[in-house]
Amino acid sequence: MDVGDEVIIPEPFYANYNGFSTASGVTVVPVMSSIDDGFALPPIEEFEKLITNKTKAILICNPGNPTGYLYSKEEIKKLAAIVKKYDLFLIADEVYREFAYDGLTHHSVLTESGLDDNAIVIDSVSKRYSMCGARIGCIVSKNKDFIATALKFAQARLSPPTYAQIASEAALDTPQSYFDDVIEEYTDRRNTLITELQKIDGVKVATPKGAFYCIAELPVTNADDFAQWLLEKFDLNGQTIMVAPAAGFYSTKNTGLNQVRIAYVLKKEDLISAAAILKAALTQYNG
Amino acid sequence: MDVGDEVIIPEPFYANYNGFSTASGVTVVPVMSSIDDGFALPPIEEFEKLITNKTKAILICNPGNPTGYLYSKEEIKKLAAIVKKYDLFLIADEVYREFAYDGLTHHSVLTESGLDDNAIVIDSVSKRYSMCGARIGCIVSKNKDFIATALKFAQARLSPPTYAQIASEAALDTPQSYFDDVIEEYTDRRNTLITELQKIDGVKVATPKGAFYCIAELPVTNADDFAQWLLEKFDLNGQTIMVAPAAGFYSTKNTGLNQVRIAYVLKKEDLISAAAILKAALTQYNG
Repeated sequence: MDVGDEVIIPEPFYANYNGFSTASGVTVVPVMSSIDDGFALPPIEEFEKLITNKTKAILICNPGNPTGYLYSKEEIKKLAAIVKKYDLFLIADEVYREFAYDGLTHHSVLTESGLDDNAIVIDSVSKRYSMCGARIGCIVSKNKDFIATALKFAQARLSPPTYAQIASEAALDTPQSYFDDVIEEYTDRRNTLITELQKIDGVKVATPKGAFYCIAELPVTNADDFAQWLLEKFDLNGQTIMVAPAAGFYSTKNTGLNQVRIAYVLKKEDLISAAAILKAALTQYNG
Repeated sequence: MDVGDEVIIPEPFYANYNGFSTASGVTVVPVMSSIDDGFALPPIEEFEKLITNKTKAILICNPGNPTGYLYSKEEIKKLAAIVKKYDLFLIADEVYREFAYDGLTHHSVLTESGLDDNAIVIDSVSKRYSMCGARIGCIVSKNKDFIATALKFAQARLSPPTYAQIASEAALDTPQSYFDDVIEEYTDRRNTLITELQKIDGVKVATPKGAFYCIAELPVTNADDFAQWLLEKFDLNGQTIMVAPAAGFYSTKNTGLNQVRIAYVLKKEDLISAAAILKAALTQYNG
């Protein structure tokens, strides 16, 4: 993308999309999704309204960070149709694709026929193998011009880290049983967290179908202030919790102010304690 | 730097400065240095002529890749004076700073007094510890605004590779005796290469004072064609050499066409063989 080009992204979205776009002079054009339908794909007409002659791509994170939403096959097909109609790239950040729950299947944009020139997948070992520190990822596309252009940036970058490349290659041998166990564990953690959150008065939460995040709406006016208060001024028996204020995942100003992102990457008993702390904190904060 | 800003760089220079500048919409403004004085700092008036209201920085590589030139204390002081006069950054890529020969001392821009707001050093473990694949480096400056801005990019990048950070920390314990041995070995290699190159008719070479490169002018009109010919069509007893055509280190068009960069990172006997191959190749190529 060139300076001044536009990328449409369903919001809330992973905050770094904003950072890297800004650093490259690219404008993020958000299309709002809602907690009320679990952050499903907004109506495709909403995308269409935002397409200009500067629009070069639609970017999705599937399953989503921070929403945990997993796009259905029908939703991916709708996106495929619109990027073909307007000759846009469909960039899919699929780094969480193994993390799909409730027997649902992840649908990669790479499996859509006729999308070879449009589809770009962002992949990484960070989440799949819990190797965030490795800094090994890749982009995948059948569009040869795109890959040739990306290679210029890769050549400037010279090489990914050697040790981590070796470790990542070894990680490819991870057996399916590992992932089966992980999915089972995360499903349990999700069920635990959502059940506990739903017990708290005034908390609204969408049940995530993938990844390991959820967005929760809290009975506060400013989740950023609340998050700071939790860390600085509150404790329950010497413990508190840290939440990510969700406003940072929206590029539309004054949006998501009463929402937080919670990562359920703790053991079940810790998630139960964390929900208890949240409940007590909300009572005191609003008291 | 913002899109449209300018950075002045003595040329020839490390080709990636061009790549990253272009990717960021920054314009490289070259100031020519010459093989005839070993690629010494061009007269400071030449820099001054090029400064506009878009100029944000002067960038040097010291000692230089691809030139092997080591700037003197006087040259660093001249640069310090001009960046202070025009309120520019002085960015010094000092990743080769241990590689200084003939008893000469490397002068870091960080040692210049009064330059705290202007001096930025680029550092890396790649050359110092022969750890190119680690991908660990850093930028150093006493300018707090600059560091705060750089941190935003670092936060988007999330983290350098973990394994390599651990290895790099261990590398800090490398004893001085290792570097003494390395400097002695590279001095020998440099002396061997330069002596052998100077024996070849029509070859002009500046004696590098640092790093492990030299630029050689060859009796050919297009070193790029010659380099390709060496790889595809020439051999001496089944062996050939690979050189880096120097035109890629110049941003001024049609410059350095008869020059190549040679890295003396081989054993002395191999450098002697390589020079013999070059001599035979030039005879045949020009025959």
